[in-house]
Amino acid sequence: MSKEAFFISEFSSQHIGDDGAVVGDFVYSKDLFCEDIHFKRSWMSLTQIAQKSMLVNLSDAIAMNAKPKWILIGIVMPKHFTYEQLRELSTGFQNVARAYGAEIIGGDTTAGDKLMISITIIAKRPSKVLYRSGAKVGDLVAFTGTLGRSYHELTRLLRGGHVGKDSRFMKPQLKADFLYKAAKHLHAGMDISDGLSKDLSRLLKASGNLGLHVKRKMSKRILCSGEEYEMLFSFDARKKKSIERIAKQTRTPITIVGKTVRKQYVCHCKEHHF
Amino acid sequence: MSKEAFFISEFSSQHIGDDGAVVGDFVYSKDLFCEDIHFKRSWMSLTQIAQKSMLVNLSDAIAMNAKPKWILIGIVMPKHFTYEQLRELSTGFQNVARAYGAEIIGGDTTAGDKLMISITIIAKRPSKVLYRSGAKVGDLVAFTGTLGRSYHELTRLLRGGHVGKDSRFMKPQLKADFLYKAAKHLHAGMDISDGLSKDLSRLLKASGNLGLHVKRKMSKRILCSGEEYEMLFSFDARKKKSIERIAKQTRTPITIVGKTVRKQYVCHCKEHHF
Repeated sequence: MSKEAFFISEFSSQHIGDDGAVVGDFVYSKDLFCEDIHFKRSWMSLTQIAQKSMLVNLSDAIAMNAKPKWILIGIVMPKHFTYEQLRELSTGFQNVARAYGAEIIGGDTTAGDKLMISITIIAKRPSKVLYRSGAKVGDLVAFTGTLGRSYHELTRLLRGGHVGKDSRFMKPQLKADFLYKAAKHLHAGMDISDGLSKDLSRLLKASGNLGLHVKRKMSKRILCSGEEYEMLFSFDARKKKSIERIAKQTRTPITIVGKTVRKQYVCHCKEHHF
Repeated sequence: MSKEAFFISEFSSQHIGDDGAVVGDFVYSKDLFCEDIHFKRSWMSLTQIAQKSMLVNLSDAIAMNAKPKWILIGIVMPKHFTYEQLRELSTGFQNVARAYGAEIIGGDTTAGDKLMISITIIAKRPSKVLYRSGAKVGDLVAFTGTLGRSYHELTRLLRGGHVGKDSRFMKPQLKADFLYKAAKHLHAGMDISDGLSKDLSRLLKASGNLGLHVKRKMSKRILCSGEEYEMLFSFDARKKKSIERIAKQTRTPITIVGKTVRKQYVCHCKEHHF
């Protein structure tokens, strides 16, 4: 068991284990975004950092088919930050929050050596919540967009290289339109943050230790690329046409990975979490 | 304007400015608790750190007369932490959450150099929310407990000294019983986190730039001691007897600081925030 899994297992709440916690009328999610862990200051502007921290958090709510409403932000930031730098950060937060119709309602700031951002998203509980655990035997499993680019870009950045302005790593392209429209046909859903293989193993495990009959062989680069923030989902094979229609309507490429079976799935990627 | 105030002013939400944000049926609050900013590892056990991080957050909800229901925890922690150390942390979180009838429903963990804890409290909105802005001219202003000990203990710790197990700095004593019972008689409320003088200035400013006719002269130690987590509140002078009765019932010492007047109050303590 990873230390993260152990720590989480210490809290025996029925709400833990999905992208967000569903309680009452809301879905709550909270993610950390930290300098020298999730990003290096030299890679991105402060506005880009704020944007990405917000996007990866919104992704959790969207993956559960919930509409983000309110946002709390906690920031640890270096004392020497200028007012101009604070404005760059707030611009990034505001731009993304507005684009998704959510309001920043509070938070906390404190001084520290490194920039760390903790975001809490409060999203409206939808009539149909998409859990990881909803997949059924015989479901088709698919993902949105293309995978592998984020890994490629991260490798380049780690080697001291640069990436373009439309970089996936810098600004994930959430597939909210597709997800909200398709949700009524879906059985299970989550976002791909730790790589297709790892996240797929979570979805299948949560759905009663299912396995996958893989339709097409995929490269390690595609299977293990983290921080993609594409959507991973399963649905009844008979809904394939409807899903493909919505994908076309929302201009969202989708790729069917395979069909769920009773056998247990094993992930062969390296753990991203410590 | 402090950088924190500037950063907050960038977000023009009507919900910002109190201990928590009141939206819909809930009161949301979020505070950071960071190594080498709010505590040093050598001062406290991990269980004490987890407990205090939780208490200072619960204090925000209680100060608004809201009952904490659900909790999200984000933690950055050193990679070398053992399972035993993780358990020490989770014990601290659980003990306090249970004592206040709240449930930990989710969060995020990540690895980093220093321990940082970000907590989000989701509290039930009470029929009467206590805001900072509710004080009226002629109100009596009072605080619970005694002030100055936390400052004294912090000074000792910073000089390399030790403090006892019942230390205020290590484990703030929240005055939830008193606050919940007294709330119906109160006009304004908040907790004392940055020192009586500083927090009093916030309460008076939020209540339409009021001033204070000080009843008793207090030492700088009492006025400027931060991290006390006692309650600061105002009420109609005619309710003095009722307040004193509840204080007696709940064994909560209270001290009346003075009476609000139209003149503006000025705080003379050093800023705690950067």
